[in-house]
Amino acid sequence: MPFLTFHEAFYFYSMTRFLFLLFPFSLCAQVNQDSAAFYIKDLYREIYGEEKAYRWLTTLTKDIGARLSGTDNCTKAVAWAKSTMDTFGLDKVWLQPVMVPYWERGKPEHAVMYSHSIGTFPLNVLALGMSPGTGDAGVHAEVISVLTLDELRALPDEKVKGKIVFFNRPMDKSSLSTFSAYGQAGDQRSYGPALAAQKGAVAAIVRSLSTSHDNEPHTGWTSTPEDVEAIPSVAVSTIDADILTTALSLGKVDVQLHTYCQNLGERPSFSVIGELTGSEFPKEIILVGGHLDSWDVGEGAHDDGAGCVQSMEVIYRLAKRKYRPRHTVRCVLFMNEESGIRGGVEYARVAAENGEFHYAAIETDGGGGTAQGFGVSAGEGKNLDVMLAQMEPISSLIEPYDLEFRPGGGGADIGPLKPKAGLLIGLRPDSSRYFDFHHSRRDVLENVHPRELASGSAALVSLLYLLDQIGPQL
Amino acid sequence: MPFLTFHEAFYFYSMTRFLFLLFPFSLCAQVNQDSAAFYIKDLYREIYGEEKAYRWLTTLTKDIGARLSGTDNCTKAVAWAKSTMDTFGLDKVWLQPVMVPYWERGKPEHAVMYSHSIGTFPLNVLALGMSPGTGDAGVHAEVISVLTLDELRALPDEKVKGKIVFFNRPMDKSSLSTFSAYGQAGDQRSYGPALAAQKGAVAAIVRSLSTSHDNEPHTGWTSTPEDVEAIPSVAVSTIDADILTTALSLGKVDVQLHTYCQNLGERPSFSVIGELTGSEFPKEIILVGGHLDSWDVGEGAHDDGAGCVQSMEVIYRLAKRKYRPRHTVRCVLFMNEESGIRGGVEYARVAAENGEFHYAAIETDGGGGTAQGFGVSAGEGKNLDVMLAQMEPISSLIEPYDLEFRPGGGGADIGPLKPKAGLLIGLRPDSSRYFDFHHSRRDVLENVHPRELASGSAALVSLLYLLDQIGPQL
Repeated sequence: MPFLTFHEAFYFYSMTRFLFLLFPFSLCAQVNQDSAAFYIKDLYREIYGEEKAYRWLTTLTKDIGARLSGTDNCTKAVAWAKSTMDTFGLDKVWLQPVMVPYWERGKPEHAVMYSHSIGTFPLNVLALGMSPGTGDAGVHAEVISVLTLDELRALPDEKVKGKIVFFNRPMDKSSLSTFSAYGQAGDQRSYGPALAAQKGAVAAIVRSLSTSHDNEPHTGWTSTPEDVEAIPSVAVSTIDADILTTALSLGKVDVQLHTYCQNLGERPSFSVIGELTGSEFPKEIILVGGHLDSWDVGEGAHDDGAGCVQSMEVIYRLAKRKYRPRHTVRCVLFMNEESGIRGGVEYARVAAENGEFHYAAIETDGGGGTAQGFGVSAGEGKNLDVMLAQMEPISSLIEPYDLEFRPGGGGADIGPLKPKAGLLIGLRPDSSRYFDFHHSRRDVLENVHPRELASGSAALVSLLYLLDQIGPQL
Repeated sequence: MPFLTFHEAFYFYSMTRFLFLLFPFSLCAQVNQDSAAFYIKDLYREIYGEEKAYRWLTTLTKDIGARLSGTDNCTKAVAWAKSTMDTFGLDKVWLQPVMVPYWERGKPEHAVMYSHSIGTFPLNVLALGMSPGTGDAGVHAEVISVLTLDELRALPDEKVKGKIVFFNRPMDKSSLSTFSAYGQAGDQRSYGPALAAQKGAVAAIVRSLSTSHDNEPHTGWTSTPEDVEAIPSVAVSTIDADILTTALSLGKVDVQLHTYCQNLGERPSFSVIGELTGSEFPKEIILVGGHLDSWDVGEGAHDDGAGCVQSMEVIYRLAKRKYRPRHTVRCVLFMNEESGIRGGVEYARVAAENGEFHYAAIETDGGGGTAQGFGVSAGEGKNLDVMLAQMEPISSLIEPYDLEFRPGGGGADIGPLKPKAGLLIGLRPDSSRYFDFHHSRRDVLENVHPRELASGSAALVSLLYLLDQIGPQL
């Protein structure tokens, strides 16, 4: 480009691109784009003005509370969600039965560190979901610490046998997304204890997956293969993980651990589903959903009360406006995301049995922070690039609300739909604060902001409306 | 377009646009864009990892505190900011003298409502900045309420004379931006009391400009023309504004009001400036700044401690990397934004005197929420559309961080630079929570999140770096 300076080249490039944007197709789209823009704006004003989702979340968190799969609170939440959706004037509201694993924390767990240098020190711990209890005698053993699963794998079994393994890798604060930081540190909670068990350890302690430096332990699911005998496993608060680290750097450390949790088989439960049947494509579904279950500490406000009430608000707003969707619109409150994804698996099975195709499945399970956009994946055999290109008109309509599409995304509950779906989409909320609260006693209503929550409802209903009206051809 | 369906047309449009995006200029920009992208990513990781701005904000809010113009705390803040910037290894750090108005709140104000229906009820109030005190005797008068200044204008003077005027228009929750809601409700605080005074009122009560429904009154500046004698004026909490509303709907209401504030002339103060001198265009400045003063309640954490420490971090990061800017880079901590903008006016005067041109002036005064992008305005005689088109390459580099440019923006302190500036830019943080705290006792460090604050520092330093390297030609 010898005849243009760098700046001139960019200027030319930008202006021609700009002109190209306007012609030749803008005229044919004008009416639809304009009326769609107006429709969305109106939805936004209504949603921000009424803060409906926040009021539902207040009921779900304060009148019901934590909703661990299989508990009475979960039954209450199912009944509340159904009876609330029954008032929306939908075409159908129903419960989809599903068996869920039932794990019980039992009496509060406790742990004490005995350090030859620091002395006796109580640790803030929470048993990990699905882990077994220690029995009344508890477990008392020396602690060894590792940063990665590979580090543990490399240790000779005799160094692990009879010990408590402490998985101590912090979430990386410098990571631009707290979700990636969570993903990068998560293997130690999900798979660490089972690996420790295989190598003969008697218990596992995992540094809480949290962005907060405080005394709250963060629980979560831990997985054990069928051929491995699970060992008692707890999360320890980040501050106490640091104290344990210091103690270990100074000499031998023992921990005495008591957990009273147990796995008690399966119980019947339900996912809750509301539907507006499609006028043109009744067998093509656009789903929006979150999960109704939560962990047993806190109130499941961000995870995933927020996603449930947002999903409810999506279908509520459409029904209130007597919107007749072209595709069938469903709000699905899945059961048992946290400890088995049984609701998501069952939903996909039934959908396949009924010959349903999910034109788009949208999940909101990233907390109630300000909506920043959507992560988009393609169903099996679909080309994401082509679909994203077709979604340009939608992209330009949501861009004024600081929303944008990113390739990659979805959610655990809609994952099983992948073989019979067009688009799998996850709402992307601002996640700056999410992992301060996630799976801990701090996941309460007070940490959800009404306007931020509303931004998610508004983003979701806008996207759903636009997909229904001018979505890509699949 | 008879030969294409709607979907096909969009698909064709999108794909051709996409191809156009790639050619023919992408190759020539490749190296610069890639290295710039890498540079920014690295800055982001460093800023999120270290949380430097948050640590400075802790000092500014907890060791110093509220910083009303003319107070000792302001002097302390000036000294702290200078001595901190002195450690950065900049080319120059200096204090720019400026005389500021000095207003003092004095003893805590108090007010009591006497309602014939509800009875006696204390109101949570805060005197408005620059308003006069009531004197020890206080003011006792009947209250009349209006929603707009026009409603007050339409009242005959005899209906206002001797009364207390209650300006009762709430911020519009359904507004998509809390800043527009603030703008739409703000005239009653800024200009309402003076209008009431002109019509013979003895005092004014203004519903707090707040998105929060609570008992915290939110203060702020109120303006009185020279030929009007100012009257005592207070902000009342939103909950008490509702109680007052109910009482007024039930019958006659008197309020007894005591404020002890006074305007005590002018005092000497300073704006604080740090500079990295430009290697190619030393007389062309890229400025990033916030204001060091705050109101006297709370800690000025969001307003504008956040903006100050973010601006400091911008120049700190560049200096730490020994970055040699092409343009002169300045961090300016303006004095007296809240009660006169004297620092901003003086800075522009001196800059004009020195023949300086501000290539870009960037202000951060919207709180420490997650950065969502920038509002961009053009200096006098410049064409914003052309500049925005030229900024496309920058736009595409900041887009992965959920940042985008919007036309319109800037800030109060950089406003006076408009005649001698290219670009005037304001950081756009997520403002969902900002007006819950703004100008109230709740504007404290605890309401700022380290990661959200860091997102602003990172956005600002990225923009500044990109403007310096590949900014539009002016």
